[in-house]
Amino acid sequence: MIDPASNELPIGVFDSGVGGLTVLKALRQQLPHEHLLYLGDTARVPYGTKSPASITRYALQAADHLRKRGIKLLVIACNTATAVALDELQKKLAPLPVVGVLEPGARAAVALRPAGSHLVLATEATVRLGAYSRAINALDASAVVAEQPCELMVALAEEGWLNDPVADAIVHRYLEPWLGETAGPKACTVILGCTHFPLLRESIRRVIGDDALIIDSASTTAQAVERTLDERKLRRLSATAPRLQLLATDGPSRFARVGRMFLEEDVSADDIELVDI
Amino acid sequence: MIDPASNELPIGVFDSGVGGLTVLKALRQQLPHEHLLYLGDTARVPYGTKSPASITRYALQAADHLRKRGIKLLVIACNTATAVALDELQKKLAPLPVVGVLEPGARAAVALRPAGSHLVLATEATVRLGAYSRAINALDASAVVAEQPCELMVALAEEGWLNDPVADAIVHRYLEPWLGETAGPKACTVILGCTHFPLLRESIRRVIGDDALIIDSASTTAQAVERTLDERKLRRLSATAPRLQLLATDGPSRFARVGRMFLEEDVSADDIELVDI
Repeated sequence: MIDPASNELPIGVFDSGVGGLTVLKALRQQLPHEHLLYLGDTARVPYGTKSPASITRYALQAADHLRKRGIKLLVIACNTATAVALDELQKKLAPLPVVGVLEPGARAAVALRPAGSHLVLATEATVRLGAYSRAINALDASAVVAEQPCELMVALAEEGWLNDPVADAIVHRYLEPWLGETAGPKACTVILGCTHFPLLRESIRRVIGDDALIIDSASTTAQAVERTLDERKLRRLSATAPRLQLLATDGPSRFARVGRMFLEEDVSADDIELVDI
Repeated sequence: MIDPASNELPIGVFDSGVGGLTVLKALRQQLPHEHLLYLGDTARVPYGTKSPASITRYALQAADHLRKRGIKLLVIACNTATAVALDELQKKLAPLPVVGVLEPGARAAVALRPAGSHLVLATEATVRLGAYSRAINALDASAVVAEQPCELMVALAEEGWLNDPVADAIVHRYLEPWLGETAGPKACTVILGCTHFPLLRESIRRVIGDDALIIDSASTTAQAVERTLDERKLRRLSATAPRLQLLATDGPSRFARVGRMFLEEDVSADDIELVDI
């Protein structure tokens, strides 16, 4: 049964800050007719160095705020929050569908390189939980997974030093242990396990060479969202122009400035609503 | 009138995270007989990219927590919190003396290089407020002050890549606009306007050369605390060994690991009390 009122609701997208805007961008490309409501928890960014208990509390508050505004599906556009809190959010928000960024990336890596070796680049918290290893090995028991925390790459992406010798040096330092003796990575895929890292894709490519596949969970997550909308018959039916609404818990002017790089389009501080969760 | 009960109370030290441990270390050297109570607001670190309203709220909550535990003086061991909230904290906590890290550094720079030019390295929030320029020019109207935001250096110090070519490259990128044509900085002093930056002192020295004075507000703040204790007759009189107590709002294990670098001594997660403010 299609309920037109539900179908008109936006897709809620939540991240610790601006990183999830790479997922928002992929959603707009994949689902150009959908309303989107984005919440960046910029007052408490970054999540990657915080404890599971704090991350879970923050994620629940953010999800609750979006649910009260009215959404038809929630995307956790943050690998750390997905690794820590996806199960709890799915339980608490049911029957609202909740899609995380982690499983779609794991699924894509396994499909493209079965029985392969995978290198996951992520935050400290995501690596500590070993969430990617579990997700990949649940799909492909013979896959070999290594996880590398790359904390400084989050600040680097936010600073906007992209395509830059300093960025290459930082990326090289993190990837060095995983490069083979004749250069090139030992892994078949390199998974961008943090939504900030697609901005550093070109540096990562330069460091790892041409052989390894780079898996960007933004586009794989957008495809997973599309499948879920279809399964639940939740696609938007109206042909009027879709709305994009941006919320932040702190600093709209910084959000706008940094957000422009992630969304690759103009964002003004006036477009961003400050919310207290 | 000396009240022995007050004199026995610890000095409270508050920072957004681990950076203030450089100030704690200087306090222990300057005042080896004092009890010290340190609170790192690691659940909400970093402050440097957040709005003044949020920073003020966080600082008031932290100060209130320390006051309730009992302290005889409060040190705001965070340049950002000092720049944003010192006046408000002094007003709200009076008659408890509150010492910030900013004014002692400004005072030292002006005393050492009168009518000089000064380059302040700080977080985005500190630079946006121009607090160093105001403090320096209030003491020396003919001083010339430039402020450079160096956000990535905070994450760099926390990652522990010290004395490292990547650190040198990052420091060079920020300082490049301020280096003279025949190398060496145009400024007479370089002020470390963030408590994380003393860890990067050797990289900064390599980049700026030998000419400019590096002003580290940790030691100047410790001297200011000593003066205040003497003025108020608040020095500890007992000869028993002093206590050091560490509190954090999140992640004791990360606090311990990163804190070791800042304090330059062993810190165990078991020594850190987790508090909810």
